[in-house]
Amino acid sequence: MLIHPDRLFPAEPGTRKIARTLYEYVRTLPIVSPHGHTHAAWFARNEPFPDPARLFVHPDHYIFRMLYSQGVPLEDLEIGQPEVKDARRVWHIFASHYYLFRATPTRMWLDFAFQELFGLEQRLSESTADLYFDTISEKLLTLEFLPRALYERFNLEVLATTDSPLDSLADHKVIRESNWKARILPTFRADPVVDPEFTGFAENIAKIGEKTGEDTSTWAGYLNALRGTRLRFRELGCTATDHGHPTARTANLAAAEAAELFRQVIAGNADAQQQELFRAQMLTEMARMSVEDGLVMQIHPGSARNHNRKLHERYGRDMGADIPMPTNYVDALRPLLDQFGNEGNLTIILFTLDESAYSRELAPLAGHYPCLRLGPPWWFHDSPDGMMRFRERVTETAGFYNTVGFNDDTRAFLSIPARHDVARRMDCAFLAKLVAEHRLEEEEAVEVAHDLAYRLVKKAYRL
Amino acid sequence: MLIHPDRLFPAEPGTRKIARTLYEYVRTLPIVSPHGHTHAAWFARNEPFPDPARLFVHPDHYIFRMLYSQGVPLEDLEIGQPEVKDARRVWHIFASHYYLFRATPTRMWLDFAFQELFGLEQRLSESTADLYFDTISEKLLTLEFLPRALYERFNLEVLATTDSPLDSLADHKVIRESNWKARILPTFRADPVVDPEFTGFAENIAKIGEKTGEDTSTWAGYLNALRGTRLRFRELGCTATDHGHPTARTANLAAAEAAELFRQVIAGNADAQQQELFRAQMLTEMARMSVEDGLVMQIHPGSARNHNRKLHERYGRDMGADIPMPTNYVDALRPLLDQFGNEGNLTIILFTLDESAYSRELAPLAGHYPCLRLGPPWWFHDSPDGMMRFRERVTETAGFYNTVGFNDDTRAFLSIPARHDVARRMDCAFLAKLVAEHRLEEEEAVEVAHDLAYRLVKKAYRL
Amino acid sequence: MLIHPDRLFPAEPGTRKIARTLYEYVRTLPIVSPHGHTHAAWFARNEPFPDPARLFVHPDHYIFRMLYSQGVPLEDLEIGQPEVKDARRVWHIFASHYYLFRATPTRMWLDFAFQELFGLEQRLSESTADLYFDTISEKLLTLEFLPRALYERFNLEVLATTDSPLDSLADHKVIRESNWKARILPTFRADPVVDPEFTGFAENIAKIGEKTGEDTSTWAGYLNALRGTRLRFRELGCTATDHGHPTARTANLAAAEAAELFRQVIAGNADAQQQELFRAQMLTEMARMSVEDGLVMQIHPGSARNHNRKLHERYGRDMGADIPMPTNYVDALRPLLDQFGNEGNLTIILFTLDESAYSRELAPLAGHYPCLRLGPPWWFHDSPDGMMRFRERVTETAGFYNTVGFNDDTRAFLSIPARHDVARRMDCAFLAKLVAEHRLEEEEAVEVAHDLAYRLVKKAYRL
Repeated sequence: MLIHPDRLFPAEPGTRKIARTLYEYVRTLPIVSPHGHTHAAWFARNEPFPDPARLFVHPDHYIFRMLYSQGVPLEDLEIGQPEVKDARRVWHIFASHYYLFRATPTRMWLDFAFQELFGLEQRLSESTADLYFDTISEKLLTLEFLPRALYERFNLEVLATTDSPLDSLADHKVIRESNWKARILPTFRADPVVDPEFTGFAENIAKIGEKTGEDTSTWAGYLNALRGTRLRFRELGCTATDHGHPTARTANLAAAEAAELFRQVIAGNADAQQQELFRAQMLTEMARMSVEDGLVMQIHPGSARNHNRKLHERYGRDMGADIPMPTNYVDALRPLLDQFGNEGNLTIILFTLDESAYSRELAPLAGHYPCLRLGPPWWFHDSPDGMMRFRERVTETAGFYNTVGFNDDTRAFLSIPARHDVARRMDCAFLAKLVAEHRLEEEEAVEVAHDLAYRLVKKAYRL
Repeated sequence: MLIHPDRLFPAEPGTRKIARTLYEYVRTLPIVSPHGHTHAAWFARNEPFPDPARLFVHPDHYIFRMLYSQGVPLEDLEIGQPEVKDARRVWHIFASHYYLFRATPTRMWLDFAFQELFGLEQRLSESTADLYFDTISEKLLTLEFLPRALYERFNLEVLATTDSPLDSLADHKVIRESNWKARILPTFRADPVVDPEFTGFAENIAKIGEKTGEDTSTWAGYLNALRGTRLRFRELGCTATDHGHPTARTANLAAAEAAELFRQVIAGNADAQQQELFRAQMLTEMARMSVEDGLVMQIHPGSARNHNRKLHERYGRDMGADIPMPTNYVDALRPLLDQFGNEGNLTIILFTLDESAYSRELAPLAGHYPCLRLGPPWWFHDSPDGMMRFRERVTETAGFYNTVGFNDDTRAFLSIPARHDVARRMDCAFLAKLVAEHRLEEEEAVEVAHDLAYRLVKKAYRL
Repeated sequence: MLIHPDRLFPAEPGTRKIARTLYEYVRTLPIVSPHGHTHAAWFARNEPFPDPARLFVHPDHYIFRMLYSQGVPLEDLEIGQPEVKDARRVWHIFASHYYLFRATPTRMWLDFAFQELFGLEQRLSESTADLYFDTISEKLLTLEFLPRALYERFNLEVLATTDSPLDSLADHKVIRESNWKARILPTFRADPVVDPEFTGFAENIAKIGEKTGEDTSTWAGYLNALRGTRLRFRELGCTATDHGHPTARTANLAAAEAAELFRQVIAGNADAQQQELFRAQMLTEMARMSVEDGLVMQIHPGSARNHNRKLHERYGRDMGADIPMPTNYVDALRPLLDQFGNEGNLTIILFTLDESAYSRELAPLAGHYPCLRLGPPWWFHDSPDGMMRFRERVTETAGFYNTVGFNDDTRAFLSIPARHDVARRMDCAFLAKLVAEHRLEEEEAVEVAHDLAYRLVKKAYRL
């Protein structure tokens, strides 16, 4: 058996019993996944997933970054190749290094999928690599492993993707126009058209101008094009925007200054400081549009992207070399909050990769400003201990109701049930400790567990 | 029952048993409250406290910041109004949002007061709001709920207030000259006369000049006026000063430089950097005076005050929008420590809102410099988990004896017993874990528990 | 009894049982000590250690910094005196303040040595001070307490010292040429010849020039002298270098720029920024040489050395007044990693005094770059809770296999078994929790415990 029914529950028997009870109330609730990186195309086309190597190893930078850290060349994993020549060999390399993942969330997610979806019960290793490869390969070709069947089996109620403003959203339209009753929604990922350092920034802006019929060479036309694009997303069910800036910095320039900055930026004349100022200004502009159109803002700051120069030159973005940085919120968000912090119709969900900000800045901010909510532990901190630290450092100041439940943030579709299950277990573990220490009544904990697993996410994301 | 006799003790039965034993040794010790924000006038006049809304909701920014964060307008709470029109309605709003405080220290403090003082045993909610309102209103008019009676009931041995250097301390004199045997002491809060950004700074300095007969237009006269004011406080039992600067920065300018900086600052010509430098210099000047007169210094840095611009413009200071910032101690304190760090007659108690400094800077500093002690977890961190983090990160480097016990730092007089009780329970929980893990003998833990609850605070604050 | 057989194991009985089982697998494994500050001379000469005061108190800044923080003058401890006049009196002062060390690792290490080596079973205090002094003094004169006998009794397999590039390593040669079969190895501590702020920097460089026959007035000759010195160390078994910079900053200047910077630095014309840039450049140069010669790099950044000015002026370095600072790794290491981060033959072991970097920067970096490994919790964090925080914050992102086991980093030779024992116990406690929460199988935990106690350190340090 790879996964134990009591996994992640506290060892102390009385507390474990409470955790089990709470978990039973939330175990089978539908999954609401308001932020992730699955592809609408999978569900539009509903074709089988590829072999185990391309399904599990290639899209998951948690996996290949760990292998790489221990000296496995990416070439050996056939990453970045147009085709995979020997998927079984790649799988064997992964299998023989599976011990590296001991005590990581990656292993917990994988073991869950291996056992619950594929019925595997022996640990993955060099000696079980072929059994795994064959079992998984075979099942992936069956009808019950097609994307739509898995969506239903996973008990998904909502699944949000993350999409460029340039995306036609054609796959989303196909799903919507099909008679398949699923709720798969786009998310407006602003970066390609608000971050001057994004590849093809100026062309991207020209393109949204064309699509919306606006003259994006002017500041006013650019803002209108953004409004129009947001409208196009909203018409397909989008309820949220997403912003992945290096810092949380915001600005609130006078209109003429902002227009002049836009002119510099669009002409390619902006230096690094001006580029940062432009991103900062655009967070405030996005907040202004959110006050108008009701889209929820998600701000994910603090990652030094593509930290490994050689890997970036050779393989491009998203190769597992994005490293967190210290992140300030208290000064950075002030200009935006000065302007819109007290708006009734604004929701901003803050994420962090800098855990020192939880108790110092994030919980105090979210425990005061009506527009602010705290997103769940993100990325490297989307882990059992990471979740416990989040609740321990945030709850006493911000309470439960300034947080927004869990989101999985994943490209690994098959890991979604496992990830939500870990979050539900850890929230129940945290609540059980509070009950055992007489800090919360058990009947209150039942209600809070339900809120954390289901209600808060729907409310925060307006789903 | 709102509060359980075993609350906050570890769930593991063996450890809980030890915690209970330790707690019995400290449960009934007198309360020494060396730092807080109650009003001497309450005890001088000994009049009944007002209705539940004005007693519990209005003075407590922990409460109304949480309500505000969830969309309750401050107008609905009648905050900032000259009179309260409908206290019962305000109370109902609070009661119907009481679930927001689940797992917060605020709820633990309130439930303690509700049960222990007012005999309430059902949870506060919309449906019990009237019961609460009526019960509390009625009791507040009885003799045993007058301020002096509560002081005695709370088993207070010392209660320090926080007072402006401009304060006449008339209420303190009244208490002292009455035949009521209580020890209520003023604390010299220097900010109004050492922080150039404080409202009315220049006028404040002129006033202490008048009061002390010094020419405060000169640096020497200004320093003399401070000395004289400190003496006036000391004559009424004051043993400590308090300093709430934005940073922990100190400076040690040559006398002529300091005098010139004072000239600029007092003339209103200082820019933000010079104002910060002046505050920095004044910490060192205050230390110099403390070496002379023995007043203990308390430094509370790291809060971005009045972060919510609109709220500040409308309601003024202290509206729950003070947000912690990253705080450096190691460089900031160096000038002061270079000058006075090894003085035998100096005690400086350091507080922080930046928990990352506990193990990195504060414990190493306090574990070396003879003048430094660490204050208890402050403000947002005055909470069960906050206290556990403090002990876990500080003790191994600084030991117990470089900390100073608990202080409640509160305006909410009725919460004082609850707050000290939480601190005693958490210290016992921490010690019980050490005993259970054979890191400390139980008989040593008994002694340490007593030190943390009673002896250390008296020694550190020279009470 | 001073130390309990179950010390440091979790209190929950089921978890404790697992911890005990795991510990039995690692308890008697040989000690590999790859980084420390013992003296080769002790083993070369094999003379008795001095009296208890000079053995335990004088060399241990953990001890005298705590005494100093509570007002004990260093004069009273006879620190910094050419001779000790009254060792018994010094010992009494220490004994009567021993309660200050409650719940500190220092006490745990000392109690281990007192009980396991000297057979003492009553707690040290004023009343047992003479018993301790006499017992220890007597035993130190016996054959079984000579350095070589203790080395064997401690079951040391490898013991690395830390040595200046100017050191003749004569003591190491004596040991090597004796017929005593021990593995005592030098470590190349680069600071005296790469840090422009190091006392005698320019003379030090001239000296290594003489020793290696290189013209160290030129950049090329300087680098060659370093290469030659490293070779001299390697010939005596050295496998690692050590770098104690104030920050983790690295640089990668063009050769001509580096040569010009060296010219400025060596001429004494460099300002603080240039000195920092030179240290930064030298980390990259050391990495380049490590790629060539295989020496493992250890980077220990983030300490504000000699923070207490008066103590430094009177007593010199290493008086317990080194205070940690916030430390950035993600930007600081980038130049070095851009150049050598993907090198197969490079191992860099990173240490920190800033625990906020564990989950934010260090685990993500080590979980990606093949050259990076994380050193164990260092200095103030070499403690039970410090170790638990390290594993909890690092493992989920970097796994176990990007860490390098324990090192004791100590001058206190007699504390070595105690320190490794604490590390083994805490790793078993951490693993037991994982097993009890069904996050790891017990048989896997056995393997990991063995890796953490023995195998990983040998692999990482190439021993």
